[in-house]
Amino acid sequence: MKLLARALALTTLLLLFPGTVLAEALPSWNDGAAKTAIQSFVQRVTDPAGKDFVRPEARIAVFDNDGTLWVEQPMYTQLAFALERLKELAPQHPEWLQNPTLKAAIDGDLKTVAAAGEKGLLELVMVTHAGMTPEEFQAIVADWLAKARHPRFKKPYTQLVYQPMLELLAYLRENGFTTYIVSGGGVEFMRSWMENVYRILPAQVVGSSIKTRFEMVDGKPALVRQPELNFIDDGAGKPVGINEHIGQRPIAAFGNSDGDLQMLQWTTAGEGPRFGLIVHHTDAEREYAYDRTSSFGHLDKALDAAPAAGWTVVDMKSDWKTVFPPAK
Amino acid sequence: MKLLARALALTTLLLLFPGTVLAEALPSWNDGAAKTAIQSFVQRVTDPAGKDFVRPEARIAVFDNDGTLWVEQPMYTQLAFALERLKELAPQHPEWLQNPTLKAAIDGDLKTVAAAGEKGLLELVMVTHAGMTPEEFQAIVADWLAKARHPRFKKPYTQLVYQPMLELLAYLRENGFTTYIVSGGGVEFMRSWMENVYRILPAQVVGSSIKTRFEMVDGKPALVRQPELNFIDDGAGKPVGINEHIGQRPIAAFGNSDGDLQMLQWTTAGEGPRFGLIVHHTDAEREYAYDRTSSFGHLDKALDAAPAAGWTVVDMKSDWKTVFPPAK
Repeated sequence: MKLLARALALTTLLLLFPGTVLAEALPSWNDGAAKTAIQSFVQRVTDPAGKDFVRPEARIAVFDNDGTLWVEQPMYTQLAFALERLKELAPQHPEWLQNPTLKAAIDGDLKTVAAAGEKGLLELVMVTHAGMTPEEFQAIVADWLAKARHPRFKKPYTQLVYQPMLELLAYLRENGFTTYIVSGGGVEFMRSWMENVYRILPAQVVGSSIKTRFEMVDGKPALVRQPELNFIDDGAGKPVGINEHIGQRPIAAFGNSDGDLQMLQWTTAGEGPRFGLIVHHTDAEREYAYDRTSSFGHLDKALDAAPAAGWTVVDMKSDWKTVFPPAK
Repeated sequence: MKLLARALALTTLLLLFPGTVLAEALPSWNDGAAKTAIQSFVQRVTDPAGKDFVRPEARIAVFDNDGTLWVEQPMYTQLAFALERLKELAPQHPEWLQNPTLKAAIDGDLKTVAAAGEKGLLELVMVTHAGMTPEEFQAIVADWLAKARHPRFKKPYTQLVYQPMLELLAYLRENGFTTYIVSGGGVEFMRSWMENVYRILPAQVVGSSIKTRFEMVDGKPALVRQPELNFIDDGAGKPVGINEHIGQRPIAAFGNSDGDLQMLQWTTAGEGPRFGLIVHHTDAEREYAYDRTSSFGHLDKALDAAPAAGWTVVDMKSDWKTVFPPAK
């Protein structure tokens, strides 16, 4: 009778503290246009008597990760991971020095790596992220995250998530939404920590991926990660990834860069109530200030498109009371 | 206070009818080894005091579709759909007659189509399933399913689902499992009807797919289905599809053919309590009897592997009280 126990507990809780859930929504958001827009949208789609009501099964909200839910400066966290892992493994792979991009990365010459563009980053990922099972890779990432520290904030990366966005995720879920990550980052890299940090299950993480292959390893069936690209979940790839994985057009999309443009466009072009939001990094003091000229989190076209499209633009500096969660 | 109302209603229901949920589980299953094995597994993984307890987030169950949840004889339903659609569209595509497989299909020469193997089936799918948005394709499928009738049973295909398996899906969900479809069938073909028939949402359907591309169509962002293979979710592809989509190894897998072999192997090779089940079609009178020599639902290696692997083999004839749901 576990179900009964749970129902009784919930009833008791709600009778004792009837206003709890709603009163606590979005405490780290300052009152203003962004907070109002979020709450008004949620109220419209959850009011069963209203014309904009959306059944819970269709309340799909998609979130970019880097720069939308956690820090992406001075470089993507996954890139920091790949660079460190490359250096760690390099002594066993003298052949990597023949590859100009890999050699530059090993030598710490990030300009050359950056100049190699997406192809260069992919080469880095291939050699550092393949050759093991997904479970083994996730364990490697978890180990790294436990000891790695952000160069400026000197904290674990998983503590450099945005408190107002954590509250937004929780608020949407309390209102019957299913929250998905849709990120250009590697899907297994993200799955290793998102359940603990965002309360988002592995099945609700959409990302870029390399291929895996089913093999018998020591007589046991296993998946092995291959040094071969499978899918890039960025830009025009995001709607494709969403459709392939979720199979429904979301009603709300949250991003911070031009890599989220098509996701925002496709989400908000659907019929019925729609919501698009861009986190604008305007706070050099508490976090970072960047947009049109940044290579990580480049925000230009999407920022220009926002007013006509009706997307909410969050001004981090004025809209957020705090940026990071309280220290643990 | 919707949450309170729901909690109160549930409490009342459970206080009035404490045994209801459990007493009604699996009514279309005869008492026997298969039913006992299912119930014993579910009890073990849901008992919080037992050593085999599995937290709800990890209670992932994967189901093949064709031949496991609905009829796959005399041919896969999706193939029947593709053949009819091919004939319907053929007058606008005289070039199809230059392709031997397509010509054979248009002429109703199924032997030649079958001889073309997987490649032949794929050609059929490419030309009949591409060129529109996923939403448009799902509408086409829904229209077809509404009027198509099975050649032997003279019923809509969506009524030719297995009642005992519908009960099994519900029973697992009542016990905190998340149920996924993992099928060789086309993912959008399945998503068009599975929520209504199986109570399985689009995001919980893993299948084969063709590529889609993000495009502006009449100035509006849209996804367009391409005549290009993306992924075949069959055989060794099933564990790959599961990992890519669900990101966790399931603890229970349900299939009926050699196309499910690797999914069963990978699922049941994990640590802790695991469950594998094969539906063996042994009932020519109420449904069909086939296994080692059938081209649809070929069951040979997986049947041989079952005893040593500890997989439950359902004898449809003796284990199932009824096969199909009562007529509506």
